[in-house]
Amino acid sequence: MSREPLTAGEITDLIDRQIRQLDLPAEPAGLYDPIRYILGLGGKRLRPLLALMSYNLFADDVGPMVLPALSIEVFHNFTLVHDDIMDKAPIRRGKATVHKKWHDNIALLSGDAMLVKAYALLAQTTAGKLPQLLTAFNKTALQVCEGQQLDMDFEKRGFAHNPVTEAEYLQMIRLKTAVLFGFSLQFGSLASGRDTQVSALLYDAGVHLGLAFQLQDDLLDVFGGEKFGKQTGGDILNAKKTYLLVKVLELAGGDDRQGIIAAITHNKMADSAKVATIKDYYTRYAVEEVAQSEIDSHLDNFFAALDTLGSNRTGRIKALVQSLATRAV
Amino acid sequence: MSREPLTAGEITDLIDRQIRQLDLPAEPAGLYDPIRYILGLGGKRLRPLLALMSYNLFADDVGPMVLPALSIEVFHNFTLVHDDIMDKAPIRRGKATVHKKWHDNIALLSGDAMLVKAYALLAQTTAGKLPQLLTAFNKTALQVCEGQQLDMDFEKRGFAHNPVTEAEYLQMIRLKTAVLFGFSLQFGSLASGRDTQVSALLYDAGVHLGLAFQLQDDLLDVFGGEKFGKQTGGDILNAKKTYLLVKVLELAGGDDRQGIIAAITHNKMADSAKVATIKDYYTRYAVEEVAQSEIDSHLDNFFAALDTLGSNRTGRIKALVQSLATRAV
Repeated sequence: MSREPLTAGEITDLIDRQIRQLDLPAEPAGLYDPIRYILGLGGKRLRPLLALMSYNLFADDVGPMVLPALSIEVFHNFTLVHDDIMDKAPIRRGKATVHKKWHDNIALLSGDAMLVKAYALLAQTTAGKLPQLLTAFNKTALQVCEGQQLDMDFEKRGFAHNPVTEAEYLQMIRLKTAVLFGFSLQFGSLASGRDTQVSALLYDAGVHLGLAFQLQDDLLDVFGGEKFGKQTGGDILNAKKTYLLVKVLELAGGDDRQGIIAAITHNKMADSAKVATIKDYYTRYAVEEVAQSEIDSHLDNFFAALDTLGSNRTGRIKALVQSLATRAV
Repeated sequence: MSREPLTAGEITDLIDRQIRQLDLPAEPAGLYDPIRYILGLGGKRLRPLLALMSYNLFADDVGPMVLPALSIEVFHNFTLVHDDIMDKAPIRRGKATVHKKWHDNIALLSGDAMLVKAYALLAQTTAGKLPQLLTAFNKTALQVCEGQQLDMDFEKRGFAHNPVTEAEYLQMIRLKTAVLFGFSLQFGSLASGRDTQVSALLYDAGVHLGLAFQLQDDLLDVFGGEKFGKQTGGDILNAKKTYLLVKVLELAGGDDRQGIIAAITHNKMADSAKVATIKDYYTRYAVEEVAQSEIDSHLDNFFAALDTLGSNRTGRIKALVQSLATRAV
């Protein structure tokens, strides 16, 4: 390899260009318009970006791998479309969700088509690399479904009896979110035929990154200030069992624990009062600091894993993650 | 090849045994119990049966191909689970549908997991055969989604203005039902590495078979007499735009056409009266005979395509289709 790895911006441009040129038929419009819509809402394209930066660790020309890497973005957007149906979420990235803009059935079927399309994109890999990529993708995709199921199961459980534990919560976000980051990082090694040791190392790095990413998401929802396309404190108002809520319920005892449960389940409290009350408990039990320290530990593991590779090409991917770690939205 | 091809019964036994042994985790139960349930409801396992009989045309030992062929059955059942949500159908194979027995969200997510599982099964093919099988499967799966979308689009259209034409209906069932039969027949040639000519021939044979199968389904719903797990005349009571209804509306003019539309859209008519009225119009315009002649023509094409193969091993698959053609349920 002679050339420097591409910058995150250069790879993002390649990704965005390919997404705009995706081979999606005009008809039936009810099937394909929602796919164009959700993919057109933007987002950071973080997963294919990581996949291609991972590939770029081992190979100069990322061009032929852009379409296969897009499988991860299309898969991720498929999960958003279906999760939004299940959560009855009205807004995604500041715009109406697919099921709100069209109909539940449309979102259901378009989502199905997106999952198939993700596989069709993955199949654009060199034949020799396909079996391993497909097997890893299948395993990841099934785990993401398991994670979403656990998330729904957890939302049905109460707060006082049989509460969700920190370990359960971490296992849920590992499945729902982190393993797809694991696959993204692993993508480069699988697509360039590295040995299983390198592949496992990058997978673990990605899982750590994904856990850090989700925990940061939980934090930012409460402490991130003004955000685009997302309510501030939305998780609190939805009584969503985030890391912060699970943790504060584990740390608080007696009256405080009762107070938290009373506030989070209160139907009549004004939004701002509810957010302020719960934030107050978060501050009292320092769960922001606990979460941040958990995030830092996962990021340390991520960087350490990359260093173990012994490659002089990891600078750009590390810089990207560093910038994500300080994101405010 | 020395051995005789297996009988349909022998292959069905292999299929049923593998379905019972499918590697599905116990937890999360909300994700995997519905999959066990729908796959346990039985059915003829017709698609993997055709796939393995097709493979058996070219190879003696079908054993290693049973799991990959099951991908088609799992995919088919995934479409049933999701279609039943969209159609709000309460009954499937005489039992509660997944979304009725559990919940829409459960059916949605379990269906997603089934689609992934279908790919995981397909991936159990010899590495060298995987790219072609996967590409054909992806194309088929996307077309099935398109067919379901057209079906929903058609159900929203009226009867009097812009009615669904026979050509539109045939294109819809080609996508929704027939191409999966096409893939099933093609499976054997792809999995045994036959040339593209043989593969295309078997695909076309399968599409003809699938069209015949769906048209027969439309017929049996009205003229099939007592059936298990299905209302008699259910399509009429649901004002479902079947081949028979589309055709009779094309054939009938003036008052008869108005009479058909009035009856099929009547909200207050007793079920038995409505079925009798519409059946009467079907008889008057001989649509049973028209449909039967369409079915026979597709079956002729199926048998002719098999004969073009010039194989002395097609007897059992032809006998199976012959027996299906005279099925009463």
